[in-house]
Amino acid sequence: MNNLTDKDRVLIFDTTLRDGEQSPGATMTHEEKLEIAELLDDMGVDIIEAGFPIASEGDFRAVSEIAKRAKNAVICGLSRANFKDIDRCAEAIRHAAQPRIHTFIGTSPLHRAIPDLTQDEMADRIHETVTHARNLCDNVQWSPMDATRTEWDYLCRVVEIAIKAGAGTINIPDTVGYTAPVESADLIKRLIETVPGADEVVFATHCHNDLGMATANSLAAVAGGARQVECTINGLGERAGNTALEEVVMALKVRNDIMPWHTGIDTTKIMHISRRVATVSGFNVQFNKAIVGKNAFAHESGIHQDGMLKNRDNFEIMRPEDVGLSGTSLPLGKHSGRAALRDKLEHLGYEVGDNQLKDIFVRFKELADRKKEVFDDDLIALMHSGENAEADHLQIVSMKVVCGTGGPAEATVEMEIDGKDVTATAHGDGPVDATFKAIREIYPNKARLQLYQVSAVTAGTDAQATVSVRLEEDGMIATGQSANTDTVVASAKAYVNALNRLLVRREKTGPGADTREISYKDVM
Amino acid sequence: MNNLTDKDRVLIFDTTLRDGEQSPGATMTHEEKLEIAELLDDMGVDIIEAGFPIASEGDFRAVSEIAKRAKNAVICGLSRANFKDIDRCAEAIRHAAQPRIHTFIGTSPLHRAIPDLTQDEMADRIHETVTHARNLCDNVQWSPMDATRTEWDYLCRVVEIAIKAGAGTINIPDTVGYTAPVESADLIKRLIETVPGADEVVFATHCHNDLGMATANSLAAVAGGARQVECTINGLGERAGNTALEEVVMALKVRNDIMPWHTGIDTTKIMHISRRVATVSGFNVQFNKAIVGKNAFAHESGIHQDGMLKNRDNFEIMRPEDVGLSGTSLPLGKHSGRAALRDKLEHLGYEVGDNQLKDIFVRFKELADRKKEVFDDDLIALMHSGENAEADHLQIVSMKVVCGTGGPAEATVEMEIDGKDVTATAHGDGPVDATFKAIREIYPNKARLQLYQVSAVTAGTDAQATVSVRLEEDGMIATGQSANTDTVVASAKAYVNALNRLLVRREKTGPGADTREISYKDVM
Repeated sequence: MNNLTDKDRVLIFDTTLRDGEQSPGATMTHEEKLEIAELLDDMGVDIIEAGFPIASEGDFRAVSEIAKRAKNAVICGLSRANFKDIDRCAEAIRHAAQPRIHTFIGTSPLHRAIPDLTQDEMADRIHETVTHARNLCDNVQWSPMDATRTEWDYLCRVVEIAIKAGAGTINIPDTVGYTAPVESADLIKRLIETVPGADEVVFATHCHNDLGMATANSLAAVAGGARQVECTINGLGERAGNTALEEVVMALKVRNDIMPWHTGIDTTKIMHISRRVATVSGFNVQFNKAIVGKNAFAHESGIHQDGMLKNRDNFEIMRPEDVGLSGTSLPLGKHSGRAALRDKLEHLGYEVGDNQLKDIFVRFKELADRKKEVFDDDLIALMHSGENAEADHLQIVSMKVVCGTGGPAEATVEMEIDGKDVTATAHGDGPVDATFKAIREIYPNKARLQLYQVSAVTAGTDAQATVSVRLEEDGMIATGQSANTDTVVASAKAYVNALNRLLVRREKTGPGADTREISYKDVM
Repeated sequence: MNNLTDKDRVLIFDTTLRDGEQSPGATMTHEEKLEIAELLDDMGVDIIEAGFPIASEGDFRAVSEIAKRAKNAVICGLSRANFKDIDRCAEAIRHAAQPRIHTFIGTSPLHRAIPDLTQDEMADRIHETVTHARNLCDNVQWSPMDATRTEWDYLCRVVEIAIKAGAGTINIPDTVGYTAPVESADLIKRLIETVPGADEVVFATHCHNDLGMATANSLAAVAGGARQVECTINGLGERAGNTALEEVVMALKVRNDIMPWHTGIDTTKIMHISRRVATVSGFNVQFNKAIVGKNAFAHESGIHQDGMLKNRDNFEIMRPEDVGLSGTSLPLGKHSGRAALRDKLEHLGYEVGDNQLKDIFVRFKELADRKKEVFDDDLIALMHSGENAEADHLQIVSMKVVCGTGGPAEATVEMEIDGKDVTATAHGDGPVDATFKAIREIYPNKARLQLYQVSAVTAGTDAQATVSVRLEEDGMIATGQSANTDTVVASAKAYVNALNRLLVRREKTGPGADTREISYKDVM
């Protein structure tokens, strides 16, 4: 990967699966990571940081599998500044057509104090580790963590060492989200002017949004000479998150007049991947989020009828279609046929085979019998509500719940566990508590409920509700989802779905194997 | 209000109640507006834009009442560029100790085309209207809407006219969220350098977040010489929203080294008002929102145990306490007494009288009997779950719901309507649909369900769930909330709560009185 042939090309480095996925509670399953990686690859992301191979068996497997499957993107793994990490990373990415090793170390005074290294000792470490990485992989990226709080002279010194040792990309992380745009531009500009060899590598910017300026800081860094932006879908990430891919990409597109750089991203794929990342991470996007919020293209009706219709340009700097939102989407109904369903699904970014269509069509008809109009969002929920059900150990067969103000709620649940039918009745505070207790009676477990969330997919009291349930057990986290017009049934299915995911993780990795014990993994 | 004595003081102009409240679906009730205004005043906001008096009877009443009650803040009303608007605005704010009239007109070519005015005609209009406003009120603010897309020469000309006519504050709105920081700073700087009289007025910046850069743009404008920042709590506002107050204020505080300006905001009040605005608007804040998101101060456990504890500065640029989040808050339990409850409530920003405490304590005990631990968030939900119940026309007396996979759900609901008991049973798709249908049978109405949302307030299956229901009827919108460990009961109460709010609005304003017919109201 080299952008030196096109000086105006900005490489998009997506770290949704590494920096995004490590935000508390956003953990994704193996299958979800593969799906998101495929969507990133498809939309034109240049480099996918797929994980931190040494952090866990699960991370290693995900990076390996994504490396094997990638079509166009460079696949990158993260590693700390030691040989063991780098070796493990090299192993994970070795099947990629275009592999990259990304290695980092905290260079600010605060971070040097943790391993208790002197400036010279750390400089030696950087030389050794980048050289080692370069011996294993032609494409090496190096990051001085907490660069924005590192002494200027020392920063120049270590960047020069990394370049001499063979790093082709130098990433400058604003680890704590501390920078302002003026500084961000200036830092990159001065580094490029000062460090010998800087003009032969790509400088990258990696910003966090703690003060709400990640996007502006990233774009300022590009103005300063950076040609790689590190970002995540929906700005997912620890604390206030990373730079949002969709904001950087759309800002470069909309304001190309003053920011004459371009990316390789197909912006019409933004909404689909944004929705998928929101769903699998359980991190909902707020209504007023730039670009991908539900309201981003919504105007209050008054203006809509007046100014908007008179001249759309008055209040629109982007068209909804630019990010893959169709403004004129008509709902389907019970008389819609299979061809209409397939058309609509394709329009929403889903390519389905004949067999899959058959299955979806059955569920679509069931839904259309209950709802007058089936909207795009209903279909998206439907697409993901019955995933992999056939492979699940635990399944809800039937259930009945009685609740109200008269006393504790009562739930009777019938489940199939590996082919065996079991029924239990339990009481609880409310229908959801009673249902979850009945499930725990049938399948005893000590998973803790971390998150419970319901949202109606579309308007109207007969709308489907999507329920997200996040469970934690022995450090492993799994999120289950289900959509149903009955919120209690959806809650039960989402809970069982999360339990199935915990089971899969436990089986595949052994007890505790996927818990993370790496202290440095959450950084940059 | 004058900041000319302190060149480094940045005035905070909050427009949560005007630009924020007009975002689709965020409409607040009269009482909610008064509460938010009081919180804004308390936290040290310099100017509160309380509404758009001519837009509706409701807006007028809110601005008038807020004007009467304000203690320290300047109270400002918005008006278009005509005498009728300005007169109505002046009438609304006349009881304020410090009133301000804010008048605006769209000056870009696109906006001039709507009323079809030539440059000269619009210039005359600006002169007349600002003069008229100034005759009614000493404190006048003027805004050229869509300033960032207005021709430079014309912008200078109209700004000069407004200053000469007596506007003391000139606000430069980036109406479509189009600007980048470099431009934002440059525009203000050049205006101040170019326009005669510019050094005698305060320049303001009003940014929108369409490209994710509102905060950076606002701060850049301050660097360029602006001394008033227009913003909203949580960045509430149309499309991607306005500049977030909390981001601008905290950035100025955290990066005072490179941005040597200060505000009068008590930052420890940020979290409380953020939660209240999220609740009353129904616009949840996403986990990874800067400053006020649930994760903004959360680090993944690995790092927390290691780097974080070794040296808190490594990853923290702000302390949770700075924004009013207590890091070490212990949950209450069933043995906690009244004093502990009052302490905790005060800590959370609620000052309660003895009578109110009595009532809350009863409900707290009920909750503590059902839940082992009562967390801060549980208490916040409790504080707002039974508001004004005694004044409500419609109340749920009891209910029983049967649901599950065996067929349609059945709900039997008993309600009291102005003292009369009525019961109905209905069937529906799921417990919520059945319950809402039963309520509609008891109290027929044609309100449309726009939004249905449930979130568990804390972790655990016995957690309280907060349900938000947003209804729309004849253009009036009302959001109801309720928290209960039984989600179906909470849903019923939230629905009835929203119906009560619709009733109140209808009674107080007459049919259609609060629907907004102003085409220009959503702008700036």
